[in-house]
Amino acid sequence: MNQTNLIKPVLDHEYPLITHGKGIYLYDEQGKQYIDGSSGAVTASIGHGVQEIIDAMAEQSKKVSFVYRSQFSTEAAEKLAKKISEISPGDLNWSFFVNSGSEATETAMKVAIQYWQEKGMKTKNKIISRWMSYHGITMGALSMSGHITRRQLFEPMLEKYPSVSAPYYYRDAAHKTIEECDDFYAQELEKAILRAGKDNVAAFIAEPMIGAAGGALIPSDQYFQKMKAVCDEYDVLFIADEVMTGMGRTGKMFGMEHFNVIPDIMATGKGMSAGYTPMAATIVSEKVMEPILNGSKIIMSGHTFSANPQSAATSLAVLNYIEKNNLVENSARMGAYLKEKINELARTSEIIGDVRGKGLFVGIEFVKDKLTKKSFARELDVVNKIVQLNFDEGLLVYPANAGAEGLTGDAVILSPPLTITKEEVDELVRRFAMALGKVERELLGELSKS
Amino acid sequence: MNQTNLIKPVLDHEYPLITHGKGIYLYDEQGKQYIDGSSGAVTASIGHGVQEIIDAMAEQSKKVSFVYRSQFSTEAAEKLAKKISEISPGDLNWSFFVNSGSEATETAMKVAIQYWQEKGMKTKNKIISRWMSYHGITMGALSMSGHITRRQLFEPMLEKYPSVSAPYYYRDAAHKTIEECDDFYAQELEKAILRAGKDNVAAFIAEPMIGAAGGALIPSDQYFQKMKAVCDEYDVLFIADEVMTGMGRTGKMFGMEHFNVIPDIMATGKGMSAGYTPMAATIVSEKVMEPILNGSKIIMSGHTFSANPQSAATSLAVLNYIEKNNLVENSARMGAYLKEKINELARTSEIIGDVRGKGLFVGIEFVKDKLTKKSFARELDVVNKIVQLNFDEGLLVYPANAGAEGLTGDAVILSPPLTITKEEVDELVRRFAMALGKVERELLGELSKS
Repeated sequence: MNQTNLIKPVLDHEYPLITHGKGIYLYDEQGKQYIDGSSGAVTASIGHGVQEIIDAMAEQSKKVSFVYRSQFSTEAAEKLAKKISEISPGDLNWSFFVNSGSEATETAMKVAIQYWQEKGMKTKNKIISRWMSYHGITMGALSMSGHITRRQLFEPMLEKYPSVSAPYYYRDAAHKTIEECDDFYAQELEKAILRAGKDNVAAFIAEPMIGAAGGALIPSDQYFQKMKAVCDEYDVLFIADEVMTGMGRTGKMFGMEHFNVIPDIMATGKGMSAGYTPMAATIVSEKVMEPILNGSKIIMSGHTFSANPQSAATSLAVLNYIEKNNLVENSARMGAYLKEKINELARTSEIIGDVRGKGLFVGIEFVKDKLTKKSFARELDVVNKIVQLNFDEGLLVYPANAGAEGLTGDAVILSPPLTITKEEVDELVRRFAMALGKVERELLGELSKS
Repeated sequence: MNQTNLIKPVLDHEYPLITHGKGIYLYDEQGKQYIDGSSGAVTASIGHGVQEIIDAMAEQSKKVSFVYRSQFSTEAAEKLAKKISEISPGDLNWSFFVNSGSEATETAMKVAIQYWQEKGMKTKNKIISRWMSYHGITMGALSMSGHITRRQLFEPMLEKYPSVSAPYYYRDAAHKTIEECDDFYAQELEKAILRAGKDNVAAFIAEPMIGAAGGALIPSDQYFQKMKAVCDEYDVLFIADEVMTGMGRTGKMFGMEHFNVIPDIMATGKGMSAGYTPMAATIVSEKVMEPILNGSKIIMSGHTFSANPQSAATSLAVLNYIEKNNLVENSARMGAYLKEKINELARTSEIIGDVRGKGLFVGIEFVKDKLTKKSFARELDVVNKIVQLNFDEGLLVYPANAGAEGLTGDAVILSPPLTITKEEVDELVRRFAMALGKVERELLGELSKS
């Protein structure tokens, strides 16, 4: 291992040094070129080295990079909040800026709890979440997450918020139709609320489409309508975790827009700044703000860097770039094309069990047997093999958990920058197919040995 | 209220818009000039609009702003980690980069727990913290914080980590000498560890000098040596929360260096990037890394933006700037001068009860009666009055809690950029004195009325 002082994800793994990036491409110090087929962690949504963003960053830095939100505001932060209000559905008009998706989901949780407190319901402070989910790594966000491997070490310190299934039609054994599945999921939520006591439940939180914990799992068109109806019946707020799915990723500005359900609170991050600066936001509806505006007038949260003008100006430039270049539409169009191409591969592949997704958020689940849908043994570490073989081909793909309990299954997400062209999709798919062939040969070799 | 979509700390308060900043000065859109006597939230440590930092930001943005740490590393992140290793005491050689102080203290907590897990001590997962303390606003960080007003709303969801006193000689009623006080504090920690069971305690966390929760409360030279000895006796790691005190703020690079105690883990943020980008770090000793490097090799944490090259290059430029311009030494020198000037004011002031601090981290506690040390009634909201009257004079000061339980007392912190000159200190003190006169007239008027 090279001498390093940097704590990396796997401490004895060698990570190439990236020297520069342009568009969908990254280049390491050996001169190797990678297609950023995952936008990093589903983040670099407009690609690397975009001149308009570089210019906006420079322009703001010449004015002022930091003011403290308890003392001042800035034009950059005000404009960004206004822009987000414009692009958000319904009455989601208020933004609380934070630095990461974890902070955004934690702030969403706190705002939900505070909403009920301001209305005099002091016991409504529990959150209900789904077993297949990932809402972040800080303790409050992890408490909401069902991601078992990330919870394990800290389980004694975590709230037990995950309590219902996520829609996973591919593996739902008990139900024949999607409608039956959805009815079951809604009933499960109702039971969970009743068990906790409706006077104790503040909110239900869900990703519109499940990322790291499920590999782009997509619900039916009706699922969220049924879940929201249960929330409404029992006075439970609905929080959409749009950190991964927001800002055009799925072919609509927000993932939830596919389902005609307007959340009470949204968390967003990642694509919101496309990686150009740490930035995230909790977006709050007028309905939720109302008792706070008429009550304590103070939302009990806030971080030192919240609403700093440098990050705000950067994120504003990103959102303007998405709009000006019709990247949401391009995500829908190129996503459909990418999914079609992956489906073509799936037809002849022996290990692609399921292809799913919307827009440029495409999940691929790998199985040992397409008929029985049996997953590979955990110790084969298939997902990391796939990621590594793609990496060797010069293609970045995002690893995800899958499997009935979000633990035994292998999936990857393809989520290239929303700027990708048809020719670039073709090249991405070509590299993916090369890696897939190697994966299959290697896995089938190992399986025949055992 | 102006039309706004931005959630600000107090929703019906008007916050001026800052248009630009230079050095210790900020300017709002009315042309009003403010001395940033607080560095925002003790953050803008090298002042505003520093050309070297602006240049470094631009230079990195032309290369690459974002790579995902699970895929790549970058020269910027490696260099920053190396620089931090060089400036940190002892064997604190490893950096985990995150986006905020909250994330840094949470990561510190998790690394401490994981250290014991890797050594086979699965039950050592509790943290002990002090009642007067603030370690951040995410649920794990807030669990460690004794800050009562920030805990209140979420108390049912928080771990009960605060369990011992912080040194507060000015108000320690039971003990005659500082030595007696320190012995009591150390004994309290011992009792807390024994009550929890030493096999259940992972770490003790403390701010070297207490910020928001205490108004720059400074321990004696021996306090931390006595506390660390207790930690060592019972196999409890020591985490220093240097988010506010690190990077030269107190006249040494890290606050703990005043006390000749080397922590096992440090959290840092704020001054680490001086506000030019959201950036923070958890700094881990070789001792703590050792069982992890030889064990799972994976530290179970990580954020999307962790170690992003844009923030890393910015922070590296800030640390280089601090070094090149001898700002740690300037902090010690100008801090001593500032404290001397405030002490001069205190001698004739009727409401300054205590002046404390090291370097450019100067706390001023206000009392109704200097002899009895009685605090002002809570409903007078003295600290916010003082902050507002200074604001009107064009001086930013940082509000802090004080008082025996961190609730009833009023304090402010003066923490201007480390770049401040003697002449600028004089002007800062002149404005502070003007505001102080108004505060006294207003308060004494109100008191004589009541």
